[in-house]
Amino acid sequence: MQCGVTTLGLMRDEITRRRFLSAVGVSGGAGAMFATMGALGLAPAHAATPAFRAPSPADFHLTGRAARKVVILGGGIAGLAAAYELGKAGYDCTILEARDVTGGRNFTVRGGTVQTDLDGHTQRAEYSPGTYLNAGPARIAQWMVTLDYCRELGVPIQPFVNANADAMIYNEATGTPIKYRTAKADVYGYVAELLAKATDQGALDSSLTSTDKARLLSFLEGFGAIGSAHEYRGTNRRGFTTYPGAGLNEGTPLPGPPALSDVFASNVGRYFSFEFGYDQAMMMFQPVGGMDRIASALTTAVGRHRVRLSAEVLDVTGRASDVTVTYRQGGRTRTVTADFCVATLPPHLMARVPHNLGADVTAALSSFPAAASGKIGLEYRSRWWETDLRIYGGITETDLDLAHVWYPSHDFHAARGLIVGYYNTGTAARTYGALSPAERTERAVMQGVKIHGEKYRTELASAFSIAWHRTPYLEGAWTSPPWTTPGYRLLLQPAGRVYFAGDWLSHEVAWQHGAFVSARAAVSALHQRVLSP
Amino acid sequence: MQCGVTTLGLMRDEITRRRFLSAVGVSGGAGAMFATMGALGLAPAHAATPAFRAPSPADFHLTGRAARKVVILGGGIAGLAAAYELGKAGYDCTILEARDVTGGRNFTVRGGTVQTDLDGHTQRAEYSPGTYLNAGPARIAQWMVTLDYCRELGVPIQPFVNANADAMIYNEATGTPIKYRTAKADVYGYVAELLAKATDQGALDSSLTSTDKARLLSFLEGFGAIGSAHEYRGTNRRGFTTYPGAGLNEGTPLPGPPALSDVFASNVGRYFSFEFGYDQAMMMFQPVGGMDRIASALTTAVGRHRVRLSAEVLDVTGRASDVTVTYRQGGRTRTVTADFCVATLPPHLMARVPHNLGADVTAALSSFPAAASGKIGLEYRSRWWETDLRIYGGITETDLDLAHVWYPSHDFHAARGLIVGYYNTGTAARTYGALSPAERTERAVMQGVKIHGEKYRTELASAFSIAWHRTPYLEGAWTSPPWTTPGYRLLLQPAGRVYFAGDWLSHEVAWQHGAFVSARAAVSALHQRVLSP
Repeated sequence: MQCGVTTLGLMRDEITRRRFLSAVGVSGGAGAMFATMGALGLAPAHAATPAFRAPSPADFHLTGRAARKVVILGGGIAGLAAAYELGKAGYDCTILEARDVTGGRNFTVRGGTVQTDLDGHTQRAEYSPGTYLNAGPARIAQWMVTLDYCRELGVPIQPFVNANADAMIYNEATGTPIKYRTAKADVYGYVAELLAKATDQGALDSSLTSTDKARLLSFLEGFGAIGSAHEYRGTNRRGFTTYPGAGLNEGTPLPGPPALSDVFASNVGRYFSFEFGYDQAMMMFQPVGGMDRIASALTTAVGRHRVRLSAEVLDVTGRASDVTVTYRQGGRTRTVTADFCVATLPPHLMARVPHNLGADVTAALSSFPAAASGKIGLEYRSRWWETDLRIYGGITETDLDLAHVWYPSHDFHAARGLIVGYYNTGTAARTYGALSPAERTERAVMQGVKIHGEKYRTELASAFSIAWHRTPYLEGAWTSPPWTTPGYRLLLQPAGRVYFAGDWLSHEVAWQHGAFVSARAAVSALHQRVLSP
Repeated sequence: MQCGVTTLGLMRDEITRRRFLSAVGVSGGAGAMFATMGALGLAPAHAATPAFRAPSPADFHLTGRAARKVVILGGGIAGLAAAYELGKAGYDCTILEARDVTGGRNFTVRGGTVQTDLDGHTQRAEYSPGTYLNAGPARIAQWMVTLDYCRELGVPIQPFVNANADAMIYNEATGTPIKYRTAKADVYGYVAELLAKATDQGALDSSLTSTDKARLLSFLEGFGAIGSAHEYRGTNRRGFTTYPGAGLNEGTPLPGPPALSDVFASNVGRYFSFEFGYDQAMMMFQPVGGMDRIASALTTAVGRHRVRLSAEVLDVTGRASDVTVTYRQGGRTRTVTADFCVATLPPHLMARVPHNLGADVTAALSSFPAAASGKIGLEYRSRWWETDLRIYGGITETDLDLAHVWYPSHDFHAARGLIVGYYNTGTAARTYGALSPAERTERAVMQGVKIHGEKYRTELASAFSIAWHRTPYLEGAWTSPPWTTPGYRLLLQPAGRVYFAGDWLSHEVAWQHGAFVSARAAVSALHQRVLSP
């Protein structure tokens, strides 16, 4: 009761639980949402998973039971969400967080942020006020429960530009960036031409009726802008050298298109599928002001007095009736004993914590390989990508080792802005991560100049980079859960009074959605046990 | 000098003109932008049209000439832009606007807005504070000069959601809405399958080399998610009944896909090309707080004392040395005499104004057919499209006579929101326009219920509709310029001392960009004439 509800500006006692659930819109969750969609013919009316129902003080009234004490290992999204949901029913939660800030990988770098990596490199962000880098998660899809928490917690959101027709594709072999709109027009144009030709020539007569063929051709003529001649000769979708203007100025179309062979040789089409993804298709969103607004709002709702920062877990000892966690904070070793524990540390780090939960638990925790990933935030003194290139947000895809370049999705037309100069994984992330921060900046800028020209260097104000696999208390960007193994299933059950949670125990790894739903699952199981006769 | 510059917070005298142009970023315009793009290999370095150069007081210093007096007919975007740009050099501009507000079709309806149409229907908007309908232009593409004016005038912008994978397609024949993401996955899946099959069977061997074929197939496998078997069997891009969750919950994919024949019979693919358009492709933008922020900022920059509202033009008489415009304001007939006139009224209305500019001018003005279009803004007491349907902005396309349904692109998660319940043209617009406002609402809601269910009716708070073709002093949504005719060319030249401007004298009709560039062209011609020896 002490946390959460007040942030909604609702008086709990004044409304029935049903109305409350409806008002906050979260507890109904995906279940309620798809029931509605089912009524509209969008989806079956019966969802496979029961909707999450947050614990409530009312749950205890009739059972004669009381909320218990819970110690939560890790103040990332899973840990915070567990404390937040348990707190709604009055559970007495304590969070132990090894870093000096909550949120875990939900980490936003601002001017003044200081971080030292496992290699001893210390960086201090010199960003201007208002400039920030979402070093971890940076986008939220419309269906994700993360948005429900934003709504419930009053965290304003804004669009995250995950795809932009005016962002570019850069392949080292050609050395010339091309706008997405141009690349798409050419690929779709030639694809439509080829399929229309094959259809016209009867090559698909065994697969298609004459009605199918007519409908297919009608679609292709529009999709590829190939006209009734079924030949792709370019289209104004490609863009213009000079856009249409006053009087007689019809605009000057971009020269082209290149020949079919050249278009497919350029391999630009390999990037198109990204924006079809169920988790990446636009629209996507971000909190206004930085992703850590979510962690911050959760922390406030939980109560800052319940969070112990810079508290490194040293031991977990479960017993029949309680759990004792030993931790180090401020040079001192302390303990906390609680009725239950929710362990949300990254599995490969939890595996190293001494405990008495069994060797099979340790083995299971050790079976999650951690991924390397890195990001750099380059603050610029001007927003040349808007003024010079007319790119307002979005992602330029490359085959360079920087992988992606992100333009900012907010503060359009402001004086300054931050570009994500690389966001890479695997070998590329390890290559950058092995460099000093200054060397990473130099490498990222050198590569970026190839795409954007010298302004990419001359307008640079400052940089801050992160290598998640070299970040203390995280040592990885995300894990690859062994979903089909007995070990994974083992961790879905409590080890005595210790429950596990985190995106690593979900099917949405590396998304906050995964951390939230896993926390909800642990909370539900724990609460049900407390309520059980 | 009296207008414009102060809004930039720049002291004109402290900086050179070159720096000023660079600082405001507008005067360089498309020319400068594409020169930069050319340097990056994105476009040829030489644009076809010279960049706009705003008049400046400095232009008069060396010539011994002085800024003149200009009367501007119409306080829409073209008229305001002309006064704004001329004002930078000290021209003494007076704007005559027949409506009681500037902006013309850039018109934002808020609570309290009152409007009476040509059929005598009076509406008063009952929208809540913060709710508004952009009744005219509502979106801006990245390349449009409109964004430069937003930047120069300090009008903040935010994304306009012009395409959303979670918005829907509704065809009356099927009666079931389908999400864009699902429709796209199925159409692209079958298109890829068909083309891959044809390629595999050698049907395209005369068009493609073996290298082309390998590259094409590689693209198709990703584009259609058809795998190496080259068969479309569905994909998680279609979406889920229950999205992936905690533990073992892999999510429940939407049932499907339908058979190929059914997918093409549903005709959903006809809507896909919209988002490829050079003028409609995402990202698109809108001013924060309403499109009329642009008109309002221009009006402030021009100086409100220079704008005469509710001033209906009655006559234009040009002479060798000046122009006299007669107008009616507050029941009185007045005149204004100026050195020049810029006429920005809609051409079909300007054609009715008595003048002495010649019968060929009247004939030319009469040759622009005006288009009908209507919009309705439905304010809802809840944002059920976000909470229930997980649609955060975007457009649902239909084959109903309401045509499009727009979900709001701003104030996500707010208590209330406004849906554009129809935005149609031609016959559909005339059908709705012929109804009373209450009947329009009833018809729009009845149709919308088919797509969205009963909440579309039960959550409705209030409505306001506009029929542009029945709106006094506009009588049309836009025109179809006879670009290739001598009459169109005639109007690009001044009729004596009268210059014409408006989106109707551009190749971007119905976009503010067209009004801005046309105004710039008129301003440039007028200024050059004043400066000429």
